Amino acid sequence: MNKNSIPHRIYLTEDQMPKQWYNLRADMDALPPLLNPGTGQPLKEEDLYPIFAKALAHQEMDAATRYVDIPEAVQDFYKMYRPSPLIRAYNLEKYLDTPAKIYYKFEGNNTSGSHKLNSAAAQAYYAKAEGLKGLTTETGAGQWGTALAEACSFFGLPLIVYMVKCSYEQKPFRKSVIQTFGADIIPSPSDTTEVGRAILKAHPDTTGSLGCAISEAVEKATSTEGYRYVLGSVLNQVLLHQSVIGLESMTALELIDEYPDVIVGCAGGGSNLGGLIAPFMRDKLTGKANPRIVAVEPASCPSMTRGRYAYDFCDTGRVTPLAKMYTLGCDFIPSANHAGGLRYHGMSPILSKLYHDGQMEAISVEQTKVFEAATTFAKQETILPAPESAHAIYGAMQEALKCKESGEAKTILFGLTGTGYFDMVAYQSFMDKKMQDYIPTDADLERGFSQLPKVED
Amino acid sequence: MNKNSIPHRIYLTEDQMPKQWYNLRADMDALPPLLNPGTGQPLKEEDLYPIFAKALAHQEMDAATRYVDIPEAVQDFYKMYRPSPLIRAYNLEKYLDTPAKIYYKFEGNNTSGSHKLNSAAAQAYYAKAEGLKGLTTETGAGQWGTALAEACSFFGLPLIVYMVKCSYEQKPFRKSVIQTFGADIIPSPSDTTEVGRAILKAHPDTTGSLGCAISEAVEKATSTEGYRYVLGSVLNQVLLHQSVIGLESMTALELIDEYPDVIVGCAGGGSNLGGLIAPFMRDKLTGKANPRIVAVEPASCPSMTRGRYAYDFCDTGRVTPLAKMYTLGCDFIPSANHAGGLRYHGMSPILSKLYHDGQMEAISVEQTKVFEAATTFAKQETILPAPESAHAIYGAMQEALKCKESGEAKTILFGLTGTGYFDMVAYQSFMDKKMQDYIPTDADLERGFSQLPKVED
Repeated sequence: MNKNSIPHRIYLTEDQMPKQWYNLRADMDALPPLLNPGTGQPLKEEDLYPIFAKALAHQEMDAATRYVDIPEAVQDFYKMYRPSPLIRAYNLEKYLDTPAKIYYKFEGNNTSGSHKLNSAAAQAYYAKAEGLKGLTTETGAGQWGTALAEACSFFGLPLIVYMVKCSYEQKPFRKSVIQTFGADIIPSPSDTTEVGRAILKAHPDTTGSLGCAISEAVEKATSTEGYRYVLGSVLNQVLLHQSVIGLESMTALELIDEYPDVIVGCAGGGSNLGGLIAPFMRDKLTGKANPRIVAVEPASCPSMTRGRYAYDFCDTGRVTPLAKMYTLGCDFIPSANHAGGLRYHGMSPILSKLYHDGQMEAISVEQTKVFEAATTFAKQETILPAPESAHAIYGAMQEALKCKESGEAKTILFGLTGTGYFDMVAYQSFMDKKMQDYIPTDADLERGFSQLPKVED
Repeated sequence: MNKNSIPHRIYLTEDQMPKQWYNLRADMDALPPLLNPGTGQPLKEEDLYPIFAKALAHQEMDAATRYVDIPEAVQDFYKMYRPSPLIRAYNLEKYLDTPAKIYYKFEGNNTSGSHKLNSAAAQAYYAKAEGLKGLTTETGAGQWGTALAEACSFFGLPLIVYMVKCSYEQKPFRKSVIQTFGADIIPSPSDTTEVGRAILKAHPDTTGSLGCAISEAVEKATSTEGYRYVLGSVLNQVLLHQSVIGLESMTALELIDEYPDVIVGCAGGGSNLGGLIAPFMRDKLTGKANPRIVAVEPASCPSMTRGRYAYDFCDTGRVTPLAKMYTLGCDFIPSANHAGGLRYHGMSPILSKLYHDGQMEAISVEQTKVFEAATTFAKQETILPAPESAHAIYGAMQEALKCKESGEAKTILFGLTGTGYFDMVAYQSFMDKKMQDYIPTDADLERGFSQLPKVED
């Protein structure tokens, strides 16, 4: 295909959609194992059965299977809203006056408003297939909660969602969407769990955090018969499901004879970034290609750029297994001023190891710059991005501007994870110039690190 | 193509997208002319120049040109968010247990959240090309205002939006989106115009209406140098631009060897319905095919099903030309309880004539039934529809249930005009069982009819 005639949007046909997920771990050195926090011993698959559906516990531990068949029911679910478009950002390129070619994979064209539906469909399907009675989860910005509510509604499973309190209050309409799909939603911390009551007692004015909501959801699942817990990011299983993003992107780029020089993604827990880069990282690890990979995280929650690579709990309540990851300490809670999402204290163990091994880069950015990039992008490309996604826009714009300086016509791919329809309070605060940046001090971070569990590595 | 292997979603390639709009009037009997309200004389194209950009005034009057070239800049704008998918509602079919095949054309995959962007792009382009200094418009549910703000931002034109007050208050985030794209937004009625001040004086507690917001926008445009007024529905030019919906739908259906037996659309001012049916109505008028066409309108604002086919003003302030259309009288304002959009007192003159000539049917539906259909649809098809769009869902479901009764495997096409992300107040009220239905009494309607202007027909 003539590169000058590359269409604005490339949609794969249904036949071209992936039939298998790609398990990046099969091409990586072994991850440090999950540890039992009591004994310090590595966990076995069976140890996860009280928390996760069995098939998902298996996927969490499985480093051997390179390609995992996507169940037909999940493929059918995907067909309701996928393939997502790969879009050439012609107007953004023109606006930036850059020789770079900018592509983005847009995952916001579904009611959940984000890529989260890709893993929600899989997790709800497996839970239903195993005859479970219900699921619990947490949600931060609300995208994961919406996605899981949609998937659970479709597969016929009850769902309880713990929503980080500040998001619950900032985004009242998210609650209504989740309820429309029939799920129960509870602001976290709440008095429905022991861990929630303890946190409320210690910090009555807390605006909540993902780590705390996870603790509550895990406790609720493990104390309710037939229930299991599901998580929308961080976990290996989630990155596996999200590989559909990268696989579709790679196929679409092949159709136009392109390969990215740089891949940019926002990074909170890592699900979108891990999914987007999966097949490109495979090429990198196997020596087939060598794209640069850049994670963009908020300056207010800089787990990769300023965190420690250490064993830590995945939640504030310290009830989960220990994972080795980049972390700010499980007690770290970003300032309530932070409206840009990506509030998680840790980072996917897979991405953490890749970053630690020098296979990818990371930068952090203040939220006012993020909203500036978001607004520019909206005006040029007619998509109103989620603040989370706008971190990747910012990163891609920086790369494109570097190309302008150097005169290089690099190919940039970034992940546009979702839409910002439920983030208008934050957009309004940005427009009204009331938005403040928050960057934790070194002392703030040291407090978090000092609470890291003592584990012999 | 084997009909059993019809994909869930059909996206045309860029090459398959329409290069011309289709002007349905070229195949219709002549419309009754627009009249000067003062003299009762038919208007000429030049008479519209003070209100509309010249190219748009021409399109408004032009019944001769069957196919109108889409300017390249508008085609390029379309490529940013089009083609929209034609979707087979496999899961809804299964849920309804119907032999019918249900397809819907989904126009909500863009930041404006609706089909309105199709005409906004054209109108902003022509205004800019003619060197105008700015535009004014009104918006009801907010979709048109968002769409026009996007288009004006892209083409570099200032914009003032008068938003119906009850929507402005019900949908605070719509305001923020419109402002993000750089437009000014004013709740209507307002004290920024003479007509607004007069309405506020007579009805201080009014929640506003589209007709009233139109009056204000027209006054503002005609009293501000270099400004013109644009409208998102009702007008012939808007139906012309929206024909892209029907043309894409027809091409996509041809690819799978389908032709609809029934076409269903929601009807407020008629822009979506007129665009969706355009090429199918062409087939009907020229004897090539004979699909049934069904308009679905709210029981609270039943302009076709209970209105009069008469000359009326397009606005409450009685400043616009007179158009012959189905109308409830330009003073008619639906109850503030009505949350389902489609609040306009009249109906597109093109659709009005087609309905009057027996070329299409119309039904009306109460809003609680609309939200019931919307919720069912969301759960089955993972798209959260706008209340406006859900009127069409309701209508299509009724047709599919008739097929279940008769055993006929009819092909149903409906227009899903947009998403409901900004309608969560209404969804919440439906869930909380606080939503009330409102049906005007005959006496209510008679009051509206008694105010119709006296025109010799």
